This record gives sequence, structure tokens and C-alpha cells, in this order.
Amino acid sequence: MNRTEILQKLSAQELTVEEAEQLLQADSSDELGYAKIDYQREERTGVPEVIYCEGKTAQQVAGIVKNMREHGAEHILGTRCSEEKYLAAAAVCPGLQYDQTARTIVYDPEPFPLNRGKIVVACAGTSDLPVAKEAVITAKFLGNEVEELFDVGVAGIHRLLSRIEILERASVIVAVAGMEGALASVIGGLTDKPVIAVPTSVGYGASFHGVTALLAMLNSCASGVSVVNIDNGFGAGYMAHSINCLGGKREE
Amino acid sequence: MNRTEILQKLSAQELTVEEAEQLLQADSSDELGYAKIDYQREERTGVPEVIYCEGKTAQQVAGIVKNMREHGAEHILGTRCSEEKYLAAAAVCPGLQYDQTARTIVYDPEPFPLNRGKIVVACAGTSDLPVAKEAVITAKFLGNEVEELFDVGVAGIHRLLSRIEILERASVIVAVAGMEGALASVIGGLTDKPVIAVPTSVGYGASFHGVTALLAMLNSCASGVSVVNIDNGFGAGYMAHSINCLGGKREE
Amino acid sequence: MNRTEILQKLSAQELTVEEAEQLLQADSSDELGYAKIDYQREERTGVPEVIYCEGKTAQQVAGIVKNMREHGAEHILGTRCSEEKYLAAAAVCPGLQYDQTARTIVYDPEPFPLNRGKIVVACAGTSDLPVAKEAVITAKFLGNEVEELFDVGVAGIHRLLSRIEILERASVIVAVAGMEGALASVIGGLTDKPVIAVPTSVGYGASFHGVTALLAMLNSCASGVSVVNIDNGFGAGYMAHSINCLGGKREE
Amino acid sequence: MNRTEILQKLSAQELTVEEAEQLLQADSSDELGYAKIDYQREERTGVPEVIYCEGKTAQQVAGIVKNMREHGAEHILGTRCSEEKYLAAAAVCPGLQYDQTARTIVYDPEPFPLNRGKIVVACAGTSDLPVAKEAVITAKFLGNEVEELFDVGVAGIHRLLSRIEILERASVIVAVAGMEGALASVIGGLTDKPVIAVPTSVGYGASFHGVTALLAMLNSCASGVSVVNIDNGFGAGYMAHSINCLGGKREE
Amino acid sequence: MNRTEILQKLSAQELTVEEAEQLLQADSSDELGYAKIDYQREERTGVPEVIYCEGKTAQQVAGIVKNMREHGAEHILGTRCSEEKYLAAAAVCPGLQYDQTARTIVYDPEPFPLNRGKIVVACAGTSDLPVAKEAVITAKFLGNEVEELFDVGVAGIHRLLSRIEILERASVIVAVAGMEGALASVIGGLTDKPVIAVPTSVGYGASFHGVTALLAMLNSCASGVSVVNIDNGFGAGYMAHSINCLGGKREE
Amino acid sequence: MNRTEILQKLSAQELTVEEAEQLLQADSSDELGYAKIDYQREERTGVPEVIYCEGKTAQQVAGIVKNMREHGAEHILGTRCSEEKYLAAAAVCPGLQYDQTARTIVYDPEPFPLNRGKIVVACAGTSDLPVAKEAVITAKFLGNEVEELFDVGVAGIHRLLSRIEILERASVIVAVAGMEGALASVIGGLTDKPVIAVPTSVGYGASFHGVTALLAMLNSCASGVSVVNIDNGFGAGYMAHSINCLGGKREE
Amino acid sequence: MNRTEILQKLSAQELTVEEAEQLLQADSSDELGYAKIDYQREERTGVPEVIYCEGKTAQQVAGIVKNMREHGAEHILGTRCSEEKYLAAAAVCPGLQYDQTARTIVYDPEPFPLNRGKIVVACAGTSDLPVAKEAVITAKFLGNEVEELFDVGVAGIHRLLSRIEILERASVIVAVAGMEGALASVIGGLTDKPVIAVPTSVGYGASFHGVTALLAMLNSCASGVSVVNIDNGFGAGYMAHSINCLGGKREE
Amino acid sequence: MNRTEILQKLSAQELTVEEAEQLLQADSSDELGYAKIDYQREERTGVPEVIYCEGKTAQQVAGIVKNMREHGAEHILGTRCSEEKYLAAAAVCPGLQYDQTARTIVYDPEPFPLNRGKIVVACAGTSDLPVAKEAVITAKFLGNEVEELFDVGVAGIHRLLSRIEILERASVIVAVAGMEGALASVIGGLTDKPVIAVPTSVGYGASFHGVTALLAMLNSCASGVSVVNIDNGFGAGYMAHSINCLGGKREE
Repeated sequence: MNRTEILQKLSAQELTVEEAEQLLQADSSDELGYAKIDYQREERTGVPEVIYCEGKTAQQVAGIVKNMREHGAEHILGTRCSEEKYLAAAAVCPGLQYDQTARTIVYDPEPFPLNRGKIVVACAGTSDLPVAKEAVITAKFLGNEVEELFDVGVAGIHRLLSRIEILERASVIVAVAGMEGALASVIGGLTDKPVIAVPTSVGYGASFHGVTALLAMLNSCASGVSVVNIDNGFGAGYMAHSINCLGGKREE
Repeated sequence: MNRTEILQKLSAQELTVEEAEQLLQADSSDELGYAKIDYQREERTGVPEVIYCEGKTAQQVAGIVKNMREHGAEHILGTRCSEEKYLAAAAVCPGLQYDQTARTIVYDPEPFPLNRGKIVVACAGTSDLPVAKEAVITAKFLGNEVEELFDVGVAGIHRLLSRIEILERASVIVAVAGMEGALASVIGGLTDKPVIAVPTSVGYGASFHGVTALLAMLNSCASGVSVVNIDNGFGAGYMAHSINCLGGKREE
Repeated sequence: MNRTEILQKLSAQELTVEEAEQLLQADSSDELGYAKIDYQREERTGVPEVIYCEGKTAQQVAGIVKNMREHGAEHILGTRCSEEKYLAAAAVCPGLQYDQTARTIVYDPEPFPLNRGKIVVACAGTSDLPVAKEAVITAKFLGNEVEELFDVGVAGIHRLLSRIEILERASVIVAVAGMEGALASVIGGLTDKPVIAVPTSVGYGASFHGVTALLAMLNSCASGVSVVNIDNGFGAGYMAHSINCLGGKREE
Repeated sequence: MNRTEILQKLSAQELTVEEAEQLLQADSSDELGYAKIDYQREERTGVPEVIYCEGKTAQQVAGIVKNMREHGAEHILGTRCSEEKYLAAAAVCPGLQYDQTARTIVYDPEPFPLNRGKIVVACAGTSDLPVAKEAVITAKFLGNEVEELFDVGVAGIHRLLSRIEILERASVIVAVAGMEGALASVIGGLTDKPVIAVPTSVGYGASFHGVTALLAMLNSCASGVSVVNIDNGFGAGYMAHSINCLGGKREE
Repeated sequence: MNRTEILQKLSAQELTVEEAEQLLQADSSDELGYAKIDYQREERTGVPEVIYCEGKTAQQVAGIVKNMREHGAEHILGTRCSEEKYLAAAAVCPGLQYDQTARTIVYDPEPFPLNRGKIVVACAGTSDLPVAKEAVITAKFLGNEVEELFDVGVAGIHRLLSRIEILERASVIVAVAGMEGALASVIGGLTDKPVIAVPTSVGYGASFHGVTALLAMLNSCASGVSVVNIDNGFGAGYMAHSINCLGGKREE
Repeated sequence: MNRTEILQKLSAQELTVEEAEQLLQADSSDELGYAKIDYQREERTGVPEVIYCEGKTAQQVAGIVKNMREHGAEHILGTRCSEEKYLAAAAVCPGLQYDQTARTIVYDPEPFPLNRGKIVVACAGTSDLPVAKEAVITAKFLGNEVEELFDVGVAGIHRLLSRIEILERASVIVAVAGMEGALASVIGGLTDKPVIAVPTSVGYGASFHGVTALLAMLNSCASGVSVVNIDNGFGAGYMAHSINCLGGKREE
Repeated sequence: MNRTEILQKLSAQELTVEEAEQLLQADSSDELGYAKIDYQREERTGVPEVIYCEGKTAQQVAGIVKNMREHGAEHILGTRCSEEKYLAAAAVCPGLQYDQTARTIVYDPEPFPLNRGKIVVACAGTSDLPVAKEAVITAKFLGNEVEELFDVGVAGIHRLLSRIEILERASVIVAVAGMEGALASVIGGLTDKPVIAVPTSVGYGASFHGVTALLAMLNSCASGVSVVNIDNGFGAGYMAHSINCLGGKREE
Repeated sequence: MNRTEILQKLSAQELTVEEAEQLLQADSSDELGYAKIDYQREERTGVPEVIYCEGKTAQQVAGIVKNMREHGAEHILGTRCSEEKYLAAAAVCPGLQYDQTARTIVYDPEPFPLNRGKIVVACAGTSDLPVAKEAVITAKFLGNEVEELFDVGVAGIHRLLSRIEILERASVIVAVAGMEGALASVIGGLTDKPVIAVPTSVGYGASFHGVTALLAMLNSCASGVSVVNIDNGFGAGYMAHSINCLGGKREE
């Protein structure tokens, strides 16, 4: 029995208000067999549950999106989503948008109000783009203005130095880099804003799929740098949003 | 006034040799032979240079403190400081205070103005105290109200659950834990505030001096958690301060 | 020719004692060229030999199942079995059942008598289901009542806390989790029952295919937790059964 | 006297406010500044809080023992305790006993009632003795009959094979070994009882302080083996007790 | 044209000394563009160059075999050879034989004379067969009697113990095992013959593709065990042969 | 009751022959509390039990030596023995000899008969001497002629090349090297004799206490090389002896 | 508008000098959406930007090559380029050449003037060829005479020793090897020229995809050896060129 | 009898040429029991043998220095030398100089002629000084002008950027850094000179004693960077010299 049916039965007086409330509460973390969706999460934390599409079938992703829409969800974000899964989900959710680089799906007709501060997402090279874009889209989805500062790797450090003022406009900075991950340290040394460092699995040989960048970022000689998991663009965007909330909303 | 200007003024007899010598000594990135102190850092970033005492002799620590005081520094923080080094430094800097647990030295007669938000520092067990205290003292020194929530490890999870309201009062939370580092995930799941996780080297065997806690924290299933280096209480306190600045100062 | 048939022939004097002895010896660990099946294992340990299907061809799996059935085996369990291998085996063993999630094959027309105690299998997320289900099916196959407690990861700890009474009903608990594996510690802290922790390879980046969860579980701050290999649902189910035997059978 | 009782007595004017305050301070999770002792743990789980002495000063260990005795604790166990710390603790707790090999302190004038089953603790070599003994003493302390089977490493496998009947008498077996840790697999192959494997840091070179034994045990080809942290004799003894409880108490 | 033919032509004055020298130089390490074959290796060491087929195309393998046959090579061994590569090589070398399990190709119409001693190759499970068979075929090819002792893993140790006399007949023993690799230690403890241990990549999770077995074997508590690389059946067979040569040839 | 007492009682007819035999059997693996000495090992394997002194106190080492002498042991070898432990043992065993470099104790008034073949022990640098010497002394003690070829590291490869004939005289070669461990490959390429490679913990930084040399040796491009644990000079000497036995004794 | 067009417009007075300068600056790091090409790199460093084709689509590679040609680039090098990507690029850049082994694309109608010194690239086995060839082609492209010394692995060290004079003719040596990487040490010991060591991912088992060779090379007992990343033939060729520049150009 | 004495005797006809040659050969790699000194190294490679003092006793260091002086050595360099060892060596070699930071001993009354190019040694922080100084002293000793650029870590990148012209004056640059080792990448991005990167063991936690810096440097996104072992200041100085030789001597 889904939410609509409960409400219909209530309206038809086949349920008392108390029974309906109990059912709705049970319903709020809805089970699809393969997934429980926590519908009270948005209420508790201000952020709706996000769909991690990796390891789910196209059918399952579509099922979850459908279920969310049926519960009236107005803000849907899915990450690590292949094009095939997007197509399945879009079929049950018109208006769902796909970003090929970030591999995200977004349904967001009425975006969240914007936080006052701005988030800057910087990345070292073109190979880091998918992770950087995932951070950008996550942060925008959660209600933040985001400025991109891409391809500013330290091998050509003049590209970064010539745009320092962009860093200065930020409330929080996300620094995305693979290989030796030096970008986080250089940015951390140039600014006093909190820096969220995201190591990427870009590189080969002794980059060990991002471990080298991860370790380098954890050992940053600059203060004010903290780190999320390898390739975790979503996590960085979420953390940046979580920090940016401290400055309050724009309309407030 | 830089080195060249000083020398030009000397040559133009606008300075006596003595004055020039003093100025050169006091030059902005002062060299003590074993260390250059960056006296413009506070101006640039709002945070004075902090002394990392490990690997320095007692004499060197004392020399740096003395040099800072002579330059009029009113905010001095030193970390990883043994008692012996403290005593040497205190001899040249009356009023210098020592925390035996955190192993910090602080000279701070006129504290920085307070940020509006509050930082909560939570730790899992008594063995994590030195790291937690380093975070607490760092954050306080930089101008933050800090609330401690110690010994709330997940093996006795009721101790944490019964104090959730403390987490809710925070702007930022620092979560300090060794062994399996589960505290960060549990706190991350209970709150929507940004969480800075600090793995500690507490544990034995397969804890690998903090690596297990570090990895666990990086893989936290809760969003809004980012991580600093093992035992890096200072870094966590600094990052928390850096975030807390977004909320503005109290007196503003 | 299985054990019973050999004995019948001996009894019918169609075989000499010497011939029977030779046949029985050859029989007890039957060789298929690619595998020796230890038919006395069930007698020795109460548990029949289990087929690990990974790395075996569909033909080999079917061959083993056929051989076991010909020896009169009434309890057959195969793990890590693809659908293709199942189909090959089912062709020679009508009644063989397949679980797509757990990837197990089971032939069990007359189940083993039940142990008195109950085993609870808990898991953190939907991605952990295959491993959790393998544990469930193994434990059931060996003669245990099993209760499932799925999708109770610590990121939404209220889901676990609201079902503590399920843990209390258990004799043994299997805790299945990937990523940072904190579930084992939290359950270990909530109960005094023995907890078998199973790390899964769920996660990405610094989860290192389950190593992080493994290390975290080995370092659990809660007592009464021991650990099996990554993704080893079978091993956990077996261990839980082995423990649960101490409480005796229900009908005794 | 718990918190509620104190408050009731205060309300009933059987206590002054001052007395109540003192009692509350000394209340169930007693704070010594450096440690909180969870006095309700025994009630909740049947097992009192155990003192992990490593990383605590002699004074702190003595302080905790004294505090526990003052709260009427009748069962005290401390692990990883140096002789110096024992002496400090014994001064405030007459009757406290020390085991030099296991490095444990025990105060246990009225032992817990015995579980019905027996625990066997086996170890590979003389260097594994400290860990094996810690397991033995822990299991005995918690109320179990324990039989020792020491120095039965697989390099001289006849020593183990000639004592198989000891394994058969056990409800649970703890297998302690360093180097290549093969003992756990061999015992696991010889018995159908649950085996708790404890890797030790015994060895050199590529033993990596117990990591090799740990990995070997996690990969045991025998079923019914689970593993605790390196050198965690306490954890193994606790887990074995936790399992052994399933068989009920002797006097029941 | 091989070495003998060149010398014969020289002796018959069909070649000048200079021409012969050039041919011999070109000849002794023949270049195929993609590989140099060292035709004097057999003369120097008694063992012809062996073809490692992995990473070579079917064409290249066939080319090398053809070139060797043209130089009159009477003993050809190729390892890690797919069926497709075998077929290409067999087309240019009638009589070439393939072993599907070991993935070896052998051309050996007139085998080397036998060493006096016997080599026993033991392996733990059916999954270890490919590596064990590679060792068997290599040792046989180089001129050794080999006895197989397969599927004697320590989980069912009675299977090994009941065949100790086979170990006693050996001059050298090759012990092949994956997972925890305990077989090498158990065999090493049962015999005083040199044991060459071969870890295999059999296992999952914390077996780390053979690393666990490798480490366990290096830490064997039994003396007289040395180790070759993971899955290196060829290397073990070669080493066993190299040792077995010490006992002299049978016909001597 | 020790061996002498048993025999005296037998002689005094206080014991029957059967009783005496039982007692002697029990006695053969003599327990000293801290160690069981396997006195039938020499009979079983031709090699007496060797004392690994690391982790034993001076008193324990002396106790074992004394006990062995009382059982009439004529061949005693102890490894990893500090000078202090030697002195304690020498006090109860006149004639015991110490090698400061190898850190071995040897009591061997009537050496074992010599094997026919010769063992060569080569090492790369002076820092590898302790391990090389342990191999030399072990091999000599077990009854082998040993030739030393020290300080022939590949950085000055002419030193090795100018002494190739020494390698040619060997039956078995032990190659000892730290850092990058290239010596084993170079020797393996120069000879067709079995090579036992011993990595040493010599080096710094990325030598990781011998792990680099260990890995390099396991990956030797030369055939006929097998490897023992890091710094395991004893194991290499033992393995070399075990191999050298195949060639028979000199006096035979 | 490309560089040529800008200059033409300037020359035609359709642009002021100021406007042209602004356009050229904007132009110099041209953005293709997926890549920024730094056209002033060649001017700054004497070396044009090199295309790393891995992780780029055939279309993107072709797009970059086209864009470079349109900017008048006369020296184009692409590495890690599949045949498919080459074909796409060749379609827009006639004269582009492909090396199947090295997987490089080169457009270089008017090569750079040659450095005076010669670079020798040595490699251990045929499997190391792709990396060695990448180094050769990179060094040649940048303006160096290169001599190849292939298949000189230390298992047959006579092949290297007989060609020492080639090493002596070099200014810089690149040593390419997988497995145990001993080639770098042996060459380093034979010469006083700077040696750039390149570990390759050639090998299996404990070669760990080149990590063993990497570690061995970092620990070379020979001086004058430095190391680049695993399989980084390009980096080695670049570094060798960078060193060789010190000797000046030939025509100078 | 040292080299000079041999030659004097030859000149005095007290030796035949043959006898002298034999003596010189024996002499050239002089054995001290604990070390062979290769006196022809300087002749062969232009660089005398350097004493690695770690792991040698003060007596041994002094013995080697004495032996070298007796052979007429005019250039002596010892690294990793404690003050105590220096004092012992200075007693037998007046004029021997000690650098407390670098921990080197140098005897060099008549320095080698200078190479034309200049070497710059840059380091990130004061804790890297010992390694940087070892590189400086090594390079100077071998005949190079060296310029120091210390304390230019990327956390305060303005310090490096303001001194770029120093980098431009160099022929070769040595970049020394611990923690995340980003200095090498930043310098590599700023210059086209060959950069030798030296990771140091400076840092804590996840710096893993220099492994993080090592990995980061191997993965530098800048070209023209190669790496030596952790803390290997000597190796970097030697490599830089080896490169700098290409530019020829100043007096040439």
C-alpha cells in the first residue's frame, strides 16, 4: 500500500487518522525490495536522499525515481549513472536531465533557495573533469552558486596564479586533482578559505588509482585542507554545501 | 619596507647602521638560521604562523618564541611541544601556558574576537584525548567557542545518543577516533553539520598506527564528512575555525 | 556405485570383503578428475561438502552435483554459482533451487533438524545483499532459523536502533557491511551476543575492495566481534551455525 | 545506587543536596578525569568493564582499580599491564593478582559461575604464550573452564595430532599462532567446533608484525574459523566466552 | 642453418672463416625482430631457452617455434600458452603437444636422460591444478621422474597424512597452494627433503591474488622451505630440477 | 623425572622396561615450562632442534642449552643470540662458541660428517655480513664445506665476474643482498646451480626493511632462484644443506 | 580566429596592436572545451605541449591535432595512442606517423636541431619494448640522436657486457626493465653517465604491475641513477633530453 | 704497503713489473676485514668511493678513513656520520671537517675542478635541511658550484615565485621535500631544467616516512622530473653532478 492509497483509504474513511499516521510513518522509509528510501531525510537534514546508481540495474534506478516521484519528491539527484540507466529513469520521470561528463541525473524543477556564499570548484586537468563536474552539479542541486576553475594544474602554475581573485570570491573551495594532487596544497597556500580536496583516480603506474593523490592531500603542508574519498565528487559537493550553509541563505 | 629599500635608505643616510640592522633582523620573513618566520602571514590570512615543535630542539623553540615576542607577536601557538621545550620557551616568554595532554604552548593575553558559531570536538576514548585536546586548543586560540564531548565511542553508543543536543548546537563538529574510527560515521549520520574527522594512531595490530581509522573515515557512509591526517588535531581545529569564520564574528 | 550399493552387494556376496574395502576407500573421497568429493565429511563433521562454483565450468559443477546425487547426497549447497552453471546442474538434479541475489544452488528436500537458537543476519546497505543472502542461505541450509535485518547502515542509525529487540532475540549475529564497516562495531556495542562480522567489497576508492571494512572490523572497539574474509557470506553463515550448535537442537 | 535512586532519595530528603551532588558525580559512568567507568555495563551485558592498561600511567591504573573497588566491584580484569602498574594497583587493592606472561591483573575473590562447555586455547610456539595466556585468563575470569594446548605448531604436527581428543572435548577453540598462522587451518580441518583464530606478532621479516598470520587465518581453507585482531588474546577469550554462554551455565 | 652446419660448411670450405664467424654471431642469439633466442643457452646451462608465451601474439609464438626447429632444436617448452597460440605453433611444428590445464606446449621427441632422484609435486586444491601441472610438465621436460600428489589441502589433513610415504620417496618436493598456503608448512614439518613452495593466486578477498599465500610460505615455521613467485609453476619445476641434478643421472 | 633418573630406576628395577619406555617417550619432547625440546627430531630428520634465541631471556637460553647437554646433545646451534645470552649459556656449557657477526652460539665438538658438494655463500655488501655469516655457520654446523664470496655487489660487478669459477665449484649457492637485491639475479644468470636468495633488511627509505629486496628476488628474471624470508640466514643455510644432502656424504 | 589570422588582420590594419595582443594572449592557451592547449609552452620551454591520448576519445585527439595544426604547430607528439585514434587524427593531419609498438603519433616534417650528446636507451626484455620505444621516439622527437640497446636483461648478462662500449658513447642512458629491474643497477655500476631508470609493468605475481621494479630501482646500490614512474617511457625520454641539452646543440 | 710504496719499490727495482702489477691489483680493492675499498673507482669513474657511515662503528669509520689516507686519497666524503664517528675519524685524519646538519665528513684540501654549470638545491621546510645539505655538500665535493634555495615550500608559494631567477641560473635543480612533496611539481612546472626530486621522511601519520612524498614526486604532472630514494640527499647530489658534467669543466 503506497502513500496515495493510504490517503485515499483515509479519505474514504476506511482508515482512522491514527491508523493512517502509523502507515505513513512505516511508509516514510519505503521499501522497494532492493532499496529503502528514507523520505524523512529531507525533513531531518534539509537534503533529500541521493541515488547512488552504481551497482543498481537500469530497472532499479528507474524504480527508485518513479517511487520518489510518486511520493511527491521535487528534488532528485542520482550519481554514477550510465546513459542507459538515465534513459530508463527518464521514461518514468519526464524532465529528468543528464550530464554526460558528471554522469548525474537531476530532476529539479524548483531549485532550493541559494546559500549566500559561493563555492569554487577547481580541477587540475581535463581527465579530472568527471569528478569536478559531479561536485559542481551536487553543490548546485543543493542550493549553491558555483564557479568553475578548470584545468589549472600546477605544471602550468601561471594559469592558476592569474586567476587568484576567483579563489578570493569563494566561501569554500573544492580542489580536484589526480596524479600527485599538488593542486590542493597550492590552493591551500594561496587562500584562507576552507578547501575540500578530492583525489581522483587519474594517472597510471605509481598513482595507484588515486592513492598517491589521496595521501598527498592528507599531508598537505597548507592548513585548512581536508579530504574526501578518491573520485568522491558528490561527497565534496555535499561537504562544501554543508559548510556554505553556515553563511545563511541569500534571501534571508 | 623590503631588504633592498632598507639598504637604499641606509646608503642615503636616512637610516643609521643600527636601525638598518634592526630592520633587517626584523624583516618580514625573519631568518633564525634554522627557521624563517613569516610575519606577514597573520596579515594575509588572519592567522599567525604556528610553531610545529617536533623535530626542533628546546633551544630552537625558545629562539623562535623569543623572536616572535620581539616582533611584537601577541598570539603564539606551538604544537607537539614536550615539557622540556615548554620550559625553555617559558623562560623567554613569561605568561606562556602549557597543556600537558595536548602538548601545546599558548601565549595569548588578548584573545582573538570570537566567531559566532560554536565548534564541538567529540572523541571516542580516553586515548584519543591528546589529539582531541590539540584540536580544542587550536580552535579556541583562533577565536572560537569550543564544547567538548569526550569518551563517546560507539562501543557504548548510548553515551553519544544521550547527548545529541550538543551536536545540534554546533556549527562544525570535529570527530576524533582511533581503532575502527566509526565515531565519524555515526556522528555524520546523526547531524547535517559539517564533520571534520581526525583518525588517531590509537590501537594496535591491524590498526596500523591510525591507517585503519583513516581509511574508515574516508569511506564514511554518511555524507558531510571530510578527513585530515592521522593525529592531526591542529589541522582539524584549524579547518573547523576556517569553516566557522563563514558565520561571522560575534561582535559584528 | 555408492556406499549403500557396495554394502548391499557385499551382503549379497556379490563382492568379497577385500573388494568391498577397496571400493569403499575409493568411494569415500570420490575423484572426478577435476575434484575429489569427501563423502565422509558429513559423517565426520555433520556438514556435507559444499561446492565452491567459482573457477569451475558449468560442466564441472553439473558433474559434481550429479556425482553427489548418485552417492545419495540429500543436502547439496553450491556457492558463487552463475545462472548458467545453475541451469547445467539443474538439468541433472531436478528440484535444485537457485537464489539470484546470493548466487547459491540448494538441493534440500529434507532439511536438517533446526538448532534451538536463532541467527540474525544484519546488513548495512542494499549493495551488501548478495553477501548477506549467502550467509542467510548457508545458515538455513545447515539447520538454523534465520531472521534478516537488512539496510540498517549507521548513516541512518535510527533504523537500527528501532529494531534492537531483533538483536536481542538472536543467539548469534552476522553483521555484513562494506565501506567503513561501522555496523559491526555498533551492533557489537548494543548486544552481548557473539557477532560474526563480514566485510564486503562494496565501496570505491579507498575502500580497496573491502580491505577498509575488514580492517575496521578487526579493530572494533566493541568486544565479542570476530571477522571472516571479505565477501565470505558462506563462511559467516557456517561459523554462525557452528556456534549455534552449542545451544542444541530444537527437538532434543 | 543509580541516578534515579539518588534523585528519589534527594526528593525524599534522605540526602542533602551536597550528598546528592557527590553521589551523582560518582554515578554510573564515573569520571576520573582520565577515564569514565561504565558501572552499568555488567548489568547490561553480564560482563564488567575491563581495564586496558596500555597507554595509562601506573597512577591512572591504580586510580581506576581503587574507584572500582569503592563502587563495590567484585570482578576486576586489567590487560596489557606492566609489573610497575600492577604494583601500584595492588597497593590499593589487596588480593589483586598478576600473571607475568599474560601481563594481566585479576581481582576475583568470588568467580562468576561456570558455563557448561569447555574452552580450549591452543598455541603454536612458546613465543605465542603471552597472547594465549591473555585469552586463557580472560575466558577463566568470565566464567569458563579452560584447557591449554600449548606448543603444538604445525612444524611438528605429530604433537597436535596426538592430542586431537582434547579438541574434541571443547565447545569452542581459540587458536593462537604467529609466523604463517597455519595452526588455525589445521585445527579447523580437524574439528567441527567454532575456532577463534588469533594472529600474533611473532616472527620477523615478511611476517610484518602479525599481518601475515592475520591474512593467512582470514583465508583459512577450513570452515568455521573467524579471526580477531593481531595479539588480541583478550578479544579471543571474550568471544569464546560469548559463544560458550550459548550452552548455558553448569549449575542450571 | 645451425651451429653444427655452419662449422661443417666451414670445414668443407664452403664458407670462409669470416663468413662463418658472422653466421655464428648472428646465429647464437638469433633475432626475430620481436625476440632474440639464445641458442647457446642449452650448451652453457644444459637447459634450452623456454618460451614465455604471455604477451606474445600467436604469430610470434609460431615464429619462435619455427625458428627454433630450423636451428635444429629438439627440446621445446612454451608456458602460459593459449589454445589459439598452440594451434598456430603446431601448424609449423608437427608433433607439438598441448596441455590444457597447464597451458604448456612441448616438443620433445627424444627426452633428456632422467635424473636419479624423483620429484613430488603436491597441491592443495583443484583450483591449484594449472600451476601444479606447469611444475610437473616443466620438471618432466627437463628430465625428471615426477609423482603427483594432488588435492591434499590441510582442511582435510587426513588425505595428506595417509600418503606420507610418497613424500618420503622424493628427492625434492614442490608444494603448490593458494589461500593461506599452509600446505608448505605442513609438508615441511613432515619431511627433511627440500621443499619448493609455490603460492597460487587462488582465493578471494584478503588472499590478494596470492600475496597471502606467498607471505605465509615465506614465514613457514618449518625449515627447508624456499619460495618462488606467485603462480610460478615453471620456476618451481625448474628449481626442483636444478636441485635434483645434484643426485646425478640414472644411467650414470 | 629426567632421562637419567628413568634409566636409574629401570636399572634398579623400580620400573619395568615398558614403563621406562613410556616415560622416555614422554620425555623426548622435554618441557622446560617455557619450551619443549624435541629430542627425537635429530633421529627423524638428521638435524637437531635449533634454538632461536630472540625473545628468550638469557636464563631461558642457558636453561635450554643445559637441558640439551643433560640429554647428551652433542650438536647445539643457537641463532640471534646476544653476547649476554651467550655468556649465560657458556657458563653451563663449556666449549660453547660465539660468532659476534652472525650472533650464533655453537657447541659442536664432533662435527657431522661432510656432504660431498660444496656450498657457496655470496653477499653484496659489508652490511649483509651478519645474515651471510648466519648462513655460513648454519651450513657448516649441519655438515657442509662452505666457501665465502663476500662484498660482490653489482655496483662493482667486476668483483663478481672475476670470481665466477668459485660459483662453478658450488653445488648450491646462497645469495645474500639488501637494497635492490640484484645479486641473486646476476648470480642466477651466471650459473645453472640452484640459488637460494636471502633478502636482507639493509637499506633505507623505500627499501622497506628488506621488502624491496624480497620482491626483487621473487621476480628474478633468472631461473633456478628461490627465496627465503628477510634476514633468514639460518633458513638459507638449512635449505642449502637440505639440497646438498642429495649429493651424498663424502665418506660414502 | 587563429594566430595566423590575427596576424594577417593586424598586418591588414584591421586590428590595432593592442587588440592583436589581447587576442594572441587569449589564443595562446586555446580552449577546445575538453582541453586547453598551451601554445606558448614551446616558446617558454623549447618543448611543445605533448598529447597524452589515454582517456581521450578518437574525436578529441583528432580535434586537438587539428587545432594545433591550425595554429601552425610544426612539431606534434602524441603518446598512448591507439590505432583507432591515430586514424582519426591522421585524417585531419596528413603526414602524421604511427609507431605500433610505442603507440605514438608524430608529426615532425622539420625536426628540431640535434643536441650534441647521444642518448642510449637500453631495455631488459622484449616485453619492455613498448616503453623503451616510447622513450626512444620522445627523445628523437625532441632533437636527440638515440641508440637502442635492447634485450640485454641480466639473466644473460654477457649480452650486456659485450656491448659496454655503446654505454660509453652515451651522454645519458635510459634503462628500461620490469620484473626485478636489476638492469638499472648493473648499468649504473658499469658507467659514470647519468642513468634514468624506467620500471615497467612487465611481470606477474609479486611484480605488482611494476612496483617491484620501481622499488628496486629506487634502491639501486649504484650511484647516478634516478627513476621515473612505472611505464613512463615518455617521461624518461623527456628527462634524458632535458639533461642532454646541457651539452649544447651540434650546430652550435 | 700502499700504492705509493709499491711504485717507489718498483722504481727502486726492488720489485719486478710483474710483482708490482700483482701487488697493485691486490691493493686496488683493499680489504679491511669489514670493508673493501675500491681504489680504482676514482680512476674508472672520476669519483672516489664514498663512505656510508650508517651501520659502521666509529672504529670502522676511522679505520677506513685511515686506510684511505694511507693510500694517498685526497678526496674523502662520508655520509650519515654521527658526531662520535666523526671524532674517531678526525683523530686519524687531521683536517677532516664535519657538518652537523648534513651529518657528513669531508676531507678535501685540494677540491676537484669545477663543472661549468651551477646546481641549485631547493628545499621545502626547515625539517628537510639535513637531506638538502647532504645534497649540497655532495655536489660541492664532486666539483660543482651550488646555490641554496631553502624554505620555499608551496604553503607560502610567494617565497618560491619571488626567486624564480635563481632557478633560471641553474643547470640542474635538486628539489627536496617531505609531506606531500609538491615542491618538485611546482619547480618542474616553472623551469625546463632537469629536476632531481628527493622525498624526505619529514611528516607524520599518512606521510608514511616519506612514501607519500616519493609517490607524489613519481607522479609529478610536470615533465623533466626524476626521483631518488627517500632521504637520499647524497644520491641526488651525485646524480646532479653526473648531469652537470655534461656541460664540461670551467677551465676547459
